[in-house]
Formats: sequence, C-alpha cells, structure tokens
Amino acid sequence: MNATDFRFDPPERILMGPGPSNVSARVLAALARPTVGYLDPSLVALLEHMSSQLQRLFRTDNAGTFAVTGSGTAAMECALSNLTEPGDRALVCVHGYFGDRMRQILERAGAQVTALAGRWGAPTDPEAVRTALRDYPDTKVVAIVHGETSTGVLQPLTEIASEVRAFGALLVVDAVASLAGVDFATDAWNIDVAYSGAQKCLSAPPGCSPITFSPRALERITARREPVRSWYLDALLNLSYWQRPHGYHHTVAINLIYALHEALAVIEDEGLERRIARTAKTAAALWAGLEALGLELLVAPSARLPTLTCVLTPDGVDEAAVRAELLARHGIEIAGALGNLRGRAWRIGLMGTSCSNRNVVLLLAALESALSRAGHGVARGAAVAAAEAALASP
Amino acid sequence: MNATDFRFDPPERILMGPGPSNVSARVLAALARPTVGYLDPSLVALLEHMSSQLQRLFRTDNAGTFAVTGSGTAAMECALSNLTEPGDRALVCVHGYFGDRMRQILERAGAQVTALAGRWGAPTDPEAVRTALRDYPDTKVVAIVHGETSTGVLQPLTEIASEVRAFGALLVVDAVASLAGVDFATDAWNIDVAYSGAQKCLSAPPGCSPITFSPRALERITARREPVRSWYLDALLNLSYWQRPHGYHHTVAINLIYALHEALAVIEDEGLERRIARTAKTAAALWAGLEALGLELLVAPSARLPTLTCVLTPDGVDEAAVRAELLARHGIEIAGALGNLRGRAWRIGLMGTSCSNRNVVLLLAALESALSRAGHGVARGAAVAAAEAALASP
Repeated sequence: MNATDFRFDPPERILMGPGPSNVSARVLAALARPTVGYLDPSLVALLEHMSSQLQRLFRTDNAGTFAVTGSGTAAMECALSNLTEPGDRALVCVHGYFGDRMRQILERAGAQVTALAGRWGAPTDPEAVRTALRDYPDTKVVAIVHGETSTGVLQPLTEIASEVRAFGALLVVDAVASLAGVDFATDAWNIDVAYSGAQKCLSAPPGCSPITFSPRALERITARREPVRSWYLDALLNLSYWQRPHGYHHTVAINLIYALHEALAVIEDEGLERRIARTAKTAAALWAGLEALGLELLVAPSARLPTLTCVLTPDGVDEAAVRAELLARHGIEIAGALGNLRGRAWRIGLMGTSCSNRNVVLLLAALESALSRAGHGVARGAAVAAAEAALASP
Repeated sequence: MNATDFRFDPPERILMGPGPSNVSARVLAALARPTVGYLDPSLVALLEHMSSQLQRLFRTDNAGTFAVTGSGTAAMECALSNLTEPGDRALVCVHGYFGDRMRQILERAGAQVTALAGRWGAPTDPEAVRTALRDYPDTKVVAIVHGETSTGVLQPLTEIASEVRAFGALLVVDAVASLAGVDFATDAWNIDVAYSGAQKCLSAPPGCSPITFSPRALERITARREPVRSWYLDALLNLSYWQRPHGYHHTVAINLIYALHEALAVIEDEGLERRIARTAKTAAALWAGLEALGLELLVAPSARLPTLTCVLTPDGVDEAAVRAELLARHGIEIAGALGNLRGRAWRIGLMGTSCSNRNVVLLLAALESALSRAGHGVARGAAVAAAEAALASP
C-alpha cells in the first residue's frame, strides 16, 4: 500500500442545489468533537435530548422519534418497509421523482402498489386520493411527498390526511425538503410517519435522518405477521437503542449526531417560525428576480415550495454550461433537473443556512451575466433590483 | 420551540471497547472540512481515489469497491441481501453474536438458512463447513465472521474459502473487526464479498462502511430474478453513483467520506503491514498483562483476535462496576460481553489509533487497581511489567 500524491481540499461552495445546504462553522465544529462510545453516558443523554428536539421540530408527541443512520432515502425505506407487509395494498402519490422512489421502495417491500400518477410540477389532487381509496378500500398505507425536490411542488396535506384517516389507512409523508423550511405539523395534520434529511433545511451534514412514528404506526409494526425485511432499518430495533434502556442495535453515526444536535440548537436559537418566515421571504425575492430575468418557473405560485425552485432553461441556452459557469466563476452550486425535466430546467435550493439574501443577490447577478453571455440578454441589474424590492416589502 | 439549557461537551475518552476506536485529530480535522455537493467535481475525484484506497486495503482488484452510507451492519445487510434471493439456500457459521446477526439478516432476505452453530469462543471448523456443503449442495451463499467482536475469535478463512469455491457457492466475510488490524486478502483468499466498518481498525468516525464485491458476486446480482429487497442498499444502484458516470442514487455522508479518506491516508502513511504488526505486538503485551493479573482469556492463543480480547471476569467481581470505575477514574471505555457471556466477561479493543503501548500500560495499571479494590488482589505492578517485557521482546 503506497501513499499517493492525491490531495483533497474541498472548495468553499455556495450550496444552492437540492441539498446539501451549507453547513455553518458552528455545526462543523460540533461535528469534529471527540468521538465517544455508542453507549457512553454523555451520548445517551444527548440522544434523549435530541429526541425531544426532533419532537419539537416535527411538532409531535410521538415517543417513536429518532434519527436513522443513513440518508433521507434510508429514512424513506425505514418508514415504508416497516409499515408494509407483503401483499398489503399501498397507495403512492407520484407527482415527481421522489414519489416514484417511494413507489419502488414499496414494491420491493412486497406491497401491492397503486400509483396515482400526477403531472410533474403540480400537487396531487385530494379528490384523486379519495377516489383511489374508494376503489381500494383495503389500502393500508398512503405515501406522499410534501416538498418534491425534483419539481419544487409543495403538496397541501391536511385534506388528504383526513381522507386517509377516515379510511383507516396510515399516512407516510416525505418531509425531506420541507421540514424546518415550511410549516409542518405531524400531529395536527394526522400524519403517521414523517421523515426528513439532515442536509436540507436543517443544514447539518448528510448521513443521519430524522424520523417519527405515531403510536398507531408502532402498533401496526408490533402486530406484523412477519419481520421487517430490513434488519438494519427495523424501527422497533432502532428504537430499542434510542429509547431506554438503550440496548445495542448498531453503531450510530456518532459525530453526525453531534452535528445534527447542534444544527437543531441553531434552529431553536433562531426560532422555527422565524426560520420558516425567513425562508418564505427569501424565496419570494428569488422568484421575483428570476421572473425579472424573463425565466419561467415550473410550478404555479399557489403550489410553489419555497425551499426548492424549479426554473425552466430558456430555449437555446445550455443548462449544464450555465451551471458549470456558476460553479467555476463563483463556486455556486445549483442543480440540473431529474427525469423528463433533465436538460430543460435548473433547480435552485434555499435551504437553512444557504437561504440568505446575499446568496439570492449573488446568484441572480451571476445568472444574469451567464444568461447574457449565452445570448439571453436582459436589462442589467433588473433581477437584483426586483429581488431587493421584494425583500424590502413588509 | 424553545432552546433549553442542555449542554453537550463530549469527554475525551480512551476508547478500548469493540469500537468506535479513538479518532485522531488529523481525521477529525478532515471531517470538519466544508460540505460540498454529492456530485461536486472535487468529491467525485475523491470517491474515485477512495475506491482505489479501499482496493488496496481489501487487497483486491474488484471494481465493485465502495463505502455503504451506514454502519457495519448496513454493510452486512448490503452484502447478504444483494447475494440472496427468496428461497436460496444459505449457510451461515455462527460462533458468536455477529454470526447470529448474519443469520437473522439472511432469513429476512428470504433465504433458506442453515446455521452451523459453533461454540462461542472458538472458530468454525472447516470440516463442519465441508460436511454442511455436502449435505446441502445447492447452497448459494456461505457467510462467516472473520473477527468475531463478541468473543475475540479470529477465524481462519483460506481452507473454508477453498471449500466454498469448490462447491460453487459465494463467500461473504465480515471483516468489521479485522480489516487493517490483522492480515486480510480478499482476492488471494477467494472471498466474494467482504465488508468492514469505519470506526474499528480504520479509526474513522462511524457511519460509512467499506465493502467490496467480486466480479462473480456482481454477476450473481445482475442475474437476479427479482430486485434486491432494499432499494437503499442495492449494490448496483450504489455502484452507479460510485462509478462513472456517477449518477444520483442517494446523498452519501459527505463529511464522513472526507474522514474515511483521511483515515485511509493515515494507514497508508504508516503502512498496512506495519500497522498489522504493531497490532499483533500490542495485543501480545495486553495478553501477557492480563494473564499476569490472573485473568483467563476466553479464546485459545491459536485463535485469538489481536484487535478484540475477551477476558473472563473473576468470580465475585462485579464486571459492570469495574467498567464504571475505569470510565469514571480514567475515561477508559472497555465493554461488557454479549449474549450468554453477558455479565461474565470484558471485551477490550486494540483498534487502530486506540492500539498503543501507552493505552495498554494505562489500562493494565487501572485494571489492577480496580481488581485490587474489588478484592481480587495481585502483586502490584506485575501486569505492567509483564506487558513491558512483551513489548521489549524482538
């Protein structure tokens, strides 16, 4: 084994894609604290404190609230595979890439899946859910994405949640791109399982993903006829570690727990409601600026997700070249699109630490220049002026 | 959401349990570098470099070499669930707690499992594997733990691997507690899938787990009749991210990748062979010291794992009280035992950064004092003297 000359020194990016968002120096410092054992008394006290932090974040009294050791997709699989047994009927609302990922995971869990295919860029209609539940009254689980990272759609949940509850099914909500960025209320909205990621609106490093199970969900899991297909993501086994008497299950990502805890403390210091209001205001400024650039946003204002904006690339402009230019000139990361939008749109994130006035102003100025160079000229300064006007409004 | 007065400041432990081991300041500094996007050019270059680092560590040419985003148990599940389809016959050697975990995961993957139950504290006899393969010639997968963290047994592998290959089955080896601590040679030993954890002999923070798939294993996965039950741990989907052209699968634990890369560079700087020799010598000193304390080691010298030593608690001594005392007085973490050894033994780790002469001397001195206070007196200083004599031998 020989050492090589490879050197790694990650650049300081401005992360305005679909996540990760920028991790603050405060959280990075927490991340780098000394590793302790997975049953160290200090860590056990931290786990218990973090569970209550996560309850406040999810706005729930669920005792079954913890963090999965893995990405948001691991939390998605944890939610769906624990609630579903082979042959169970599941309904999944697919209005974007991540709804489709839920479908795939449900199928691999052995569920009989009904996919309610909607248009990418619009939310699912509660009426369609009602109809599907009438068609399949044996539906055990309904799965839906709250903030669709692939399109920037914010899905209204309360009406659908009421339908699901009325039919006696359990509701699983993907809050990866929404939690701590927009309003979210697990208990008040009758959500049975919700999960998120660390690296989106929480601005913690990725790899440790909050999840919450309602008592009804835990009862369903306890009554399973056969074990969860994943031992690693078995919710009850995970809870046997997170809850007293804290038995061994697997070694959690201890330093990521430190960082997530600190990121949650940052949110508490700002105040969750203020953070959500800041996100809404910053997004309004971004949208005003993008429209001043003559760009078309994919999603109608009524269903637009503040934390992730999907904007169509003008005809004749190479979307990847613009992204490469933003990265090379300014270290700004925005993302291309997924699925059938690939090559035709950009995705711009405003998540947690990355959601700031200065980032919006810089991005708009840089994007204006890049578009101008690409032959899509607009009045110079118009975008920044529009954004600043939006920020100045009450 | 209200901030509370909870303060978290993890103590600087001396981690001599079954993992995590101590993470060096160099690796913690790498961990805290700025987070970049999961497809940032700098990260993609790092992934490619890390794959080759991991190939050298596993001593393999396998292109299917990467790190699972999750604990060593996630890597275990990744290995077993990808290779096994429902109804497949699997043989698992259970001579400790983690062999039994493999059995549970295989059963959840739908395999027809034959468990070869051995005595905790001794390795599996190759003759027993040969007999089992003759009894079940349709066996598709054989699973075995190389370094059993629950007992401290080092399992000889070459003879078993030859049998498995002769029968046309695939061999999965758990190298969580052995890789980079003892000799390991994936290709030379005909191992089809091997995996490890970051927080054992690599001394990186937990949450990111190396794994390698042989071409034969990948062929088997490619030829599956139905998809892997876990979407998150699907090996081919994970490889679509790790290998060119680096498509999106899930957001990996980016900062843990930084840290694992740095930990691998630390190993390259020391030299893998020198690290293994250091571990062997340090373990011999620990064993000499423990025997000078009149303690009985669970495992015979011929099968003893240098990285984890299981030592029986003397009659009349409260094993948990001694551990608590070591933690309170010196910040030393050792572990209790699992399964039917619980309450009757300690487990002492010598992994990576934690494996040092000074840690052995301190632990022996502290343990001697604790045993003396517990009424198990020995000649003061004898343990340290025995350890130092072992260290001084050529």
